[in-house]
Amino acid sequence: MNQEKIVISIDAMGSERGPKAVVDGILQSAEMNPNVEFIVHGDEVSISKLIENSNLQSRCQILNSSDLVSMDDKPSQIVRNGKNTSMWSAIESVKQGKAQVCVSCGNTGALMALSMFRLRRLKGVNRPAIACLWPSVSKLGYNIVLDVGADIKADQDDLFQYAMMGLNYARKGFGIKKPRIGILNVGTEEHKGRSELKLAYDLISSASDKEGFEFVGFVEGSDIPSEEVDIIVTDGFTGNIAIKTAEGTANLISGKMKSAFKTNFFSGLGGLLAASSLIKLKKEIDPRQVNGGIFLGLNGIVIKSHGSADPTGIASAINLGITLAESGFYDSENNAERPT
Amino acid sequence: MNQEKIVISIDAMGSERGPKAVVDGILQSAEMNPNVEFIVHGDEVSISKLIENSNLQSRCQILNSSDLVSMDDKPSQIVRNGKNTSMWSAIESVKQGKAQVCVSCGNTGALMALSMFRLRRLKGVNRPAIACLWPSVSKLGYNIVLDVGADIKADQDDLFQYAMMGLNYARKGFGIKKPRIGILNVGTEEHKGRSELKLAYDLISSASDKEGFEFVGFVEGSDIPSEEVDIIVTDGFTGNIAIKTAEGTANLISGKMKSAFKTNFFSGLGGLLAASSLIKLKKEIDPRQVNGGIFLGLNGIVIKSHGSADPTGIASAINLGITLAESGFYDSENNAERPT
Repeated sequence: MNQEKIVISIDAMGSERGPKAVVDGILQSAEMNPNVEFIVHGDEVSISKLIENSNLQSRCQILNSSDLVSMDDKPSQIVRNGKNTSMWSAIESVKQGKAQVCVSCGNTGALMALSMFRLRRLKGVNRPAIACLWPSVSKLGYNIVLDVGADIKADQDDLFQYAMMGLNYARKGFGIKKPRIGILNVGTEEHKGRSELKLAYDLISSASDKEGFEFVGFVEGSDIPSEEVDIIVTDGFTGNIAIKTAEGTANLISGKMKSAFKTNFFSGLGGLLAASSLIKLKKEIDPRQVNGGIFLGLNGIVIKSHGSADPTGIASAINLGITLAESGFYDSENNAERPT
Repeated sequence: MNQEKIVISIDAMGSERGPKAVVDGILQSAEMNPNVEFIVHGDEVSISKLIENSNLQSRCQILNSSDLVSMDDKPSQIVRNGKNTSMWSAIESVKQGKAQVCVSCGNTGALMALSMFRLRRLKGVNRPAIACLWPSVSKLGYNIVLDVGADIKADQDDLFQYAMMGLNYARKGFGIKKPRIGILNVGTEEHKGRSELKLAYDLISSASDKEGFEFVGFVEGSDIPSEEVDIIVTDGFTGNIAIKTAEGTANLISGKMKSAFKTNFFSGLGGLLAASSLIKLKKEIDPRQVNGGIFLGLNGIVIKSHGSADPTGIASAINLGITLAESGFYDSENNAERPT
């Protein structure tokens, strides 16, 4: 446990649900974490009103920003002209050492571009990655997948670094002592797949003893939610297709399930009786519970919460940031060096 | 409608469930299609016994093979030494013009390698593709995705050819007059993704008027089961990851649903009452109902049925072959030329 005061910097203006959802999320998290302080960036007047009379008032600083990043803004434009946005300001608090973690629900591309521009990459890291928590049958309830979309390319060295970043994240964020790492491929045989995957196989495999993880080799798309692996390494193109395909599949099934329960009286009644169990199920595979893609490979922790996340989801992203800050995650992240 | 006699050539030895499952599948299909004939390849003694006294006997020829392809056999070995296998023999009937379609449940890699080796690629086709039927919310109940694993690479010309092959398949196999074609990517904006995707975008877009399809541009993983698109074009690496990720997600949800219904008395009762609707749902997203990956870009129709498919699934793959043969699919498949 790190003894430093934990401060979380939050962009209040990025949510599709408006600043109220973000502030409600902060309130939820603040209640669970009485020693944590917050810096909230955005429209000072509306944020002040939202936290009036709450227990947050005494441990929350509001920094006014006159502008905000919209979902349609191009990342390059924000890097050039975004100085007055709440997103920029939120990252700045981390850069200046006033906060350990930045949380934003805003435009992913702009958040990554600004994070790279202001915080810079860790020494030795070529491409930062976005790691997500993937609902799974493991004891933890999810596995770590990276990269899910920071960069559309990754060579063997990038994939090796993703493995090391994921390793540190699994240890510091979730207390997994000896994580199991796999590389996403089209088959589990060693000779399968693209050449950079085979090279990454050798690099990661040879580091397992020294770094204290278990290498499970190649895994397939169907293995992502399995209990045989904790960390799944892939390039950002493939990872992004995979995560969105899973989302589409879950939506397809839940849509079909709803119409199935509407079919006749008995199934409607059945659905009603089963409701509490289905709500429990929904919670288990609910992205809100595991909300928060994390940007790895930067000089600072940046967490991207889903743009449409509700207060519970936003609180969950903030809580993840608090756990990482407490674990000293940031101090130790720059161990992602290639084995010599 | 083609007036030629329809004959389907079937590898009886490729199923994980043994030849009985395959023969039962043929029996199911034969009942639905009284004018179709079959050539069945494999162990003559056991197949003869299985069709004894059935209505199949008069329209089924059995060709004995002394060997079979196992799931672990390497494709290259089968191409060199597989002459006596039932898979080779099944493809040979198509090559010799005795059947229009070959159906096998066996080793996908070996089936593709043998199909390429014996049937050869269509003129102008660089890489054949495997097209699958993806459960969707569209009226048809599924969309077409290709390539899902014939080749791990695809450049812009390959992707263009996949689009043209998918177009012909959608028209001849499913009667979709003006199919909507999309390219799988990490975002829907024109500037996103890998360079070959942007080049394929231009190629496919410029062919839409002449070929009479609608180009919907880039689609994301979450759009694969949508009703906005009929054909989704991607390279075989990405397509394979996507289809297996969807499979893993569906399994995760169905596993969690089972335990949810076990939670307490009410939910158990609810599950029971809802059972008929859930069975209907299961049928709708059941891969058996849409069983059959098809190999496109070859001089002949080859359908890969799932290795663990039951008789209903195998019958469904055979029925797909019959539909394609009746539509004259094979005669018209070689229109996959790049626009000039």
